[in-house]
Amino acid sequence: MDERTGAAMTPTSERYMIVSSDCHAGLRCDEYRPYLDARYTEQFDAFLAEREAARGEALRMNYDYIMNWETDHAEGLQGAHDPARRDKELDADGVAGEVLFPDSDAITGMESPPFGAGLSAGAIADPNLAFAGARAHNRFLAELCSEHPERRAGIALVPICHDIERGVAEIEWAARQPGIRGIMIPTMWRDRLPYNDVAYDAIWAACQVHGLPVHVHSGEAPRDEYGDNIGIYLAEVVWWTTRPIAHLLFSGAFERFPGLRFVVTEAAAYWAPDMMWKWDVYFGGGHTTKKMAAMMAGKLSKLPSEYFGTNVFIGASTMSKEEIRRRHAIGCDVAMWGTDYPHPEGTWPNTISRLRQDFADVPLADARLLLGETCARVYGFDTDALRTIADRIGPTPADLGQDPSLVTTDPAVIAQARWWRATL
Amino acid sequence: MDERTGAAMTPTSERYMIVSSDCHAGLRCDEYRPYLDARYTEQFDAFLAEREAARGEALRMNYDYIMNWETDHAEGLQGAHDPARRDKELDADGVAGEVLFPDSDAITGMESPPFGAGLSAGAIADPNLAFAGARAHNRFLAELCSEHPERRAGIALVPICHDIERGVAEIEWAARQPGIRGIMIPTMWRDRLPYNDVAYDAIWAACQVHGLPVHVHSGEAPRDEYGDNIGIYLAEVVWWTTRPIAHLLFSGAFERFPGLRFVVTEAAAYWAPDMMWKWDVYFGGGHTTKKMAAMMAGKLSKLPSEYFGTNVFIGASTMSKEEIRRRHAIGCDVAMWGTDYPHPEGTWPNTISRLRQDFADVPLADARLLLGETCARVYGFDTDALRTIADRIGPTPADLGQDPSLVTTDPAVIAQARWWRATL
Repeated sequence: MDERTGAAMTPTSERYMIVSSDCHAGLRCDEYRPYLDARYTEQFDAFLAEREAARGEALRMNYDYIMNWETDHAEGLQGAHDPARRDKELDADGVAGEVLFPDSDAITGMESPPFGAGLSAGAIADPNLAFAGARAHNRFLAELCSEHPERRAGIALVPICHDIERGVAEIEWAARQPGIRGIMIPTMWRDRLPYNDVAYDAIWAACQVHGLPVHVHSGEAPRDEYGDNIGIYLAEVVWWTTRPIAHLLFSGAFERFPGLRFVVTEAAAYWAPDMMWKWDVYFGGGHTTKKMAAMMAGKLSKLPSEYFGTNVFIGASTMSKEEIRRRHAIGCDVAMWGTDYPHPEGTWPNTISRLRQDFADVPLADARLLLGETCARVYGFDTDALRTIADRIGPTPADLGQDPSLVTTDPAVIAQARWWRATL
Repeated sequence: MDERTGAAMTPTSERYMIVSSDCHAGLRCDEYRPYLDARYTEQFDAFLAEREAARGEALRMNYDYIMNWETDHAEGLQGAHDPARRDKELDADGVAGEVLFPDSDAITGMESPPFGAGLSAGAIADPNLAFAGARAHNRFLAELCSEHPERRAGIALVPICHDIERGVAEIEWAARQPGIRGIMIPTMWRDRLPYNDVAYDAIWAACQVHGLPVHVHSGEAPRDEYGDNIGIYLAEVVWWTTRPIAHLLFSGAFERFPGLRFVVTEAAAYWAPDMMWKWDVYFGGGHTTKKMAAMMAGKLSKLPSEYFGTNVFIGASTMSKEEIRRRHAIGCDVAMWGTDYPHPEGTWPNTISRLRQDFADVPLADARLLLGETCARVYGFDTDALRTIADRIGPTPADLGQDPSLVTTDPAVIAQARWWRATL
């Protein structure tokens, strides 16, 4: 047993069982048509025209970069919607299992679910379109994940801030699809009910019952405030993505639904230690927040940091070396590595060499958690099935340049990583 | 000469010249009446009634804490508006100079400028009230700071997002008042023009010409989204306060106005190293942001972190021990310590013992920068005048429990603190 996770230790083989916490799948926009309710045809044509215009604009800004990427990776990019091709790419990258988000074309947006119902669902004005786009993608996704469901955790789109009741119905449908293992909600609620509102309890209850982790994924931000300033977007997008954690945690959602799991994906992980530190101090009612203490009393039964690894998880994607260094403060039972396939900012198709670059000095037990075991636990993967695949295609510690005698980290080092606990 | 600041080293005396980057001054709400334009009398009466009700509510939640604080410190709290009493409190706390923000009653809000024109000026709906409240406070502040102006940097209220032209006029007025050395703008622009808009160039130009640093100060946040969840407020308020840095920096405001100084006050400082790291990486166009690189090109002439210490400063108030440990990454030429007098979450009236607790192992040169020299430079204090006061009331290194042989930090340690620079 691993004392941090309660999970059985990896059996026999030394090959890594890699589970990518962040991959993307999607059809070309126009190919969503047969999955979309026919009554939205007119709005769909308008959406397609808008997408084409956006691609034109992207090409005007960034032609060489886009064309080089699309030409050099033409075959592999087909895996966005072709499961056989997809498995081939995962195999070559050493990845046994994966979590599937929408919007597989992250440069020009030509594989977005109808009406932008994927990574910018909060920006949709009409709830009917938000749900119609989500359902179209979910139908496609359920099909895709029905091929080799043992290696896929499809994330269904449920735009809960547009309509809670319809959201619950979509969760019930999703729970019946093999290969669907979680839901994604809009990152921003904008002018609708914030996620701290108890009205969302119906959503959290349904997700707890069906064991479906709830996700937000980076992408959305109040771009109308930024003008053409991509620097401001980059500076803010991580915060907007992590924002819902506070709203769920401090409103007591994890008290009322202790089985609820909430995952923040592709918004890095470097912020987690400072977040836990500050929140623990606030909640501990130290000198600087003493005047607030009366208002905090009785809201939570444990420290904010103690929800990490049980209720709060981080789909950390292609973690930076610095984040890997901070792994014990972030939590190897919290952060989950990911390739971001098939996005150009990810590690595909060079995953093994990137892992070699970043994990060579990481003890094997830590690497196993970060690269696959935590993810398998959060999404309920069948680890026997994944192990069979990993034994065929997973990299060995030698492939990652690791010293096999470096097995574990000193437990004292792990305990001290959240240094502020001793000061509370 | 100190090579980091270009400033002359502290002369002769060993006593610390402490300049508090964060203090508060204000009249009791009803006493602002003679400073307010008579045409707003009716709205002022409504404001006073609302303040009284808010105090009643605060007392209902937190009676013992509030009454104990107000009773135990009754005399010292008079320094909020009585300059002689104020100097006595500063002297006893070992503080030679100070920066003065509004809202001296941080618990029940009974010393707010009219209409909340202090720390929540963005929340005011009517621009006329925002400016009327600001002007009332500014008139009081100019009077207060005219007594011993050598030890005061009064921060005038200029609600620029409510009206840019009137903002410029208020800056011109403020620049003529002895003791006024900076302006504070609303932390949140809400549904008005974001601070990245070039329409604000008239404001930045006026502040550059008159050498007035521009401030945001913590307090405001979108509380209407939080319900009664003070935990969410605490989790978010730092971000809302630091948000304008990105909007000024990435929109090129410091390129167009290289003499412009922007200060974020009482929103901690722990976030600064990760902010600089991530922004430098984004701007450097590394692998994960390569697809954005074309859109970033030509916007800035140097790395984001290089604006810290020249254009961006942090009024870090009562820094935590961890922030003091991170001082070289944050920058001893960036962060400025402060007492937060007369707020209960500050160090007053126990400043020396708190400094002893937190600075005992800090080399003297670093402590001098953090506790006073950086602040004196940013606000253009007359350091000869401050030195005379400090020689009378400032603590010695022995008072702070410091080993006087620990003079400076190894320059290599300082250079390596911003570790990511070597990886760009």
